[in-house]
Amino acid sequence: MADRRAAQALDEQDELGDRRGRFAIADDGLIYLDGNSLGRLPRDTPARLAEVVERQWGQRLIRGWSEGWMELPRTIGDRLGAGLLGAAPGQVAIADSTTVCFYKLAAAALAARPDRDQIVTDVDNFPTDRYVLESLARERGCEIVWIRGDPRSGPSAEQVAAVLGDRTALVTFSHVSYRSAYILDQAQITRLAHDAGALALWDECHSVGAIPVSLDSDGVDLAVGCTYKYLNGGPGAPAFLYVRAEHQGSMRQPIWGWLGRADPFEMAPGWVPGEGISAMLSGTPPVLGLTAAAAGIDVVLEAGIDAIRRKSVALCEYAISLIDEWLSPLGCSVGSPRDSAVRGSHVALVHPDARGLCPALARVGVLVDFRTPDVIRLGLSPLTTRFVDVYDALERLRGLLA
Amino acid sequence: MADRRAAQALDEQDELGDRRGRFAIADDGLIYLDGNSLGRLPRDTPARLAEVVERQWGQRLIRGWSEGWMELPRTIGDRLGAGLLGAAPGQVAIADSTTVCFYKLAAAALAARPDRDQIVTDVDNFPTDRYVLESLARERGCEIVWIRGDPRSGPSAEQVAAVLGDRTALVTFSHVSYRSAYILDQAQITRLAHDAGALALWDECHSVGAIPVSLDSDGVDLAVGCTYKYLNGGPGAPAFLYVRAEHQGSMRQPIWGWLGRADPFEMAPGWVPGEGISAMLSGTPPVLGLTAAAAGIDVVLEAGIDAIRRKSVALCEYAISLIDEWLSPLGCSVGSPRDSAVRGSHVALVHPDARGLCPALARVGVLVDFRTPDVIRLGLSPLTTRFVDVYDALERLRGLLA
Repeated sequence: MADRRAAQALDEQDELGDRRGRFAIADDGLIYLDGNSLGRLPRDTPARLAEVVERQWGQRLIRGWSEGWMELPRTIGDRLGAGLLGAAPGQVAIADSTTVCFYKLAAAALAARPDRDQIVTDVDNFPTDRYVLESLARERGCEIVWIRGDPRSGPSAEQVAAVLGDRTALVTFSHVSYRSAYILDQAQITRLAHDAGALALWDECHSVGAIPVSLDSDGVDLAVGCTYKYLNGGPGAPAFLYVRAEHQGSMRQPIWGWLGRADPFEMAPGWVPGEGISAMLSGTPPVLGLTAAAAGIDVVLEAGIDAIRRKSVALCEYAISLIDEWLSPLGCSVGSPRDSAVRGSHVALVHPDARGLCPALARVGVLVDFRTPDVIRLGLSPLTTRFVDVYDALERLRGLLA
Repeated sequence: MADRRAAQALDEQDELGDRRGRFAIADDGLIYLDGNSLGRLPRDTPARLAEVVERQWGQRLIRGWSEGWMELPRTIGDRLGAGLLGAAPGQVAIADSTTVCFYKLAAAALAARPDRDQIVTDVDNFPTDRYVLESLARERGCEIVWIRGDPRSGPSAEQVAAVLGDRTALVTFSHVSYRSAYILDQAQITRLAHDAGALALWDECHSVGAIPVSLDSDGVDLAVGCTYKYLNGGPGAPAFLYVRAEHQGSMRQPIWGWLGRADPFEMAPGWVPGEGISAMLSGTPPVLGLTAAAAGIDVVLEAGIDAIRRKSVALCEYAISLIDEWLSPLGCSVGSPRDSAVRGSHVALVHPDARGLCPALARVGVLVDFRTPDVIRLGLSPLTTRFVDVYDALERLRGLLA
């Protein structure tokens, strides 16, 4: 029978147990299982923002642009790429929102395959990705081929292979499903896309900072992701985009802004692409957002993705064991893969009244996410979530259901 | 003969003289004439950021989205619209960068005139606008009709009228020229565009917070602008977009993200537009950037645009009088209109060696902007620039030239 001392013992043995101290966590008893929607505030972030706001902006003023701000999208991008995305330098930039980055790269991919008119994705891909694809398909006269994957995991490589062909321009999925936490086989699906002559664009929002990502070695062409979930960059933090080096000379994104142009401050006639990943930028870099994103990324880099992944697996396994023991008899089931090798860092708990249970949990001090139609999503953010948090949260849910 | 005591006397009589105290200004003797590239840091901004970062993000966490963050693009937009843009509520939102906003609205305008294939703008429009138009023209098979305006002012209404016709889909200019400070006749050019059956999109980057703007009464269809110049929102602060109420039901921007959809958190299949201006949003709102933008906008609203405009005119007239007296004999000329009715809040000082003089000025403690090929741009930001700053800056320039 599960008991709280076992959870405490797991916390005591936790190799990342001291990392919680790197975050500003109020002593309010809140159990926060939503770090995969909005990561917690790193302790260093306020001071790093103050340095940028009060000293750099306040005193250096416009000189800040030549004293580092202009390079932030690429320097932070390289740090993120090397430490968490398996990307060699010069392929990652921080910019815009995930939605805008996804639009730019999906449009670039379609433009690079002008003789093809199909986009392959799944019905349960993250909504903003689906909506952007609908817009691009309508605009460019393309057809979306919707795969309906297993709702408790996601689309399989076999399902993808079955719809690829010489009409396929773009294959795009979330690496980790926002609902089930299923990890798609990024390397295999990318290979299948390439075998069909198509390009692969991956959304890393729910994988970056939670599981190891290997964009270079998986052969990925294009990727995007956000910095406000497991990377703790703050509400609405800017996104990142990855463009494989070999595509940078030929692929064009559609939002030709001044920051993507060679020599932007010459303000010359005619857009010509900036060098490398710079050509994927559009407007003025959001320096405050970039600063908070960098602080959040650094906390994850310090811990290292291997230790993070180990704890993530342990937390999820622990949550599933409690669900099986306590909650299955009360009408709940596990909506995530049981095999940790194909599961990210959250657990979908399925219950017919999930929509009502989420606010009820909030009233007893447990924050989770509701996902339509029947999922209570337990986000287990390895740097800040403790085993006792999992214990206490599921114990309270058991109380609500009993 | 100009003397410094006259400048001091003007500062003493300045109705906005106390407003400088609302900004965090280091006691470093710097003369900052670049507030039209990056406005100074308002004194309230650090505390307002700390409240959002440390209390809202740090303690309220994901609950912040239902406790106000989600509405920030529209609530700050309405405040900006009412106080500085002449826009009734529900037509302005803060989002993305100027470049991305301009792309979205220009694309929306072209989509709304599918039988027309010309875009009218001027060769000296702000670069990012020109580059976005080039991209859209290429993508959509349109032609750009480039007007070459007077380099010391800008395109005239007559020049615009001469090129309009039944092929014109979109007419787009900067309301105030980033180089010459010339104020285009927004109402008249918009009328001309409408008479030709076209839509008018205006860039307000150099007008908002510097001169009164009347989007509703000028009949403007679409507008964008930034918040980091005269609005003091900080480096890379998010932009704003305006879509006239009557167009909101029919015009579609191309980046269909989740935040532009009705009921985004239902995450349902198929994008359907959100209500009103919300349909123009795409990704997750950048809460840190929005917070600093709001703090900057509030300082401008407090002062009121009429007093700001009065001081702006006086500062520019004073600068021009010193140029005439001191610098014309030394090879300088005024590259801005002499009529204050058609001049914004900066003065273009033309000199063949402008490119070398700008860093030389920086070395003697005066920050200005160089604009190719021969312009020293003196940005006179009425809330923070004093008459003695103008005096001292031009006195030092005289020293360099003598």
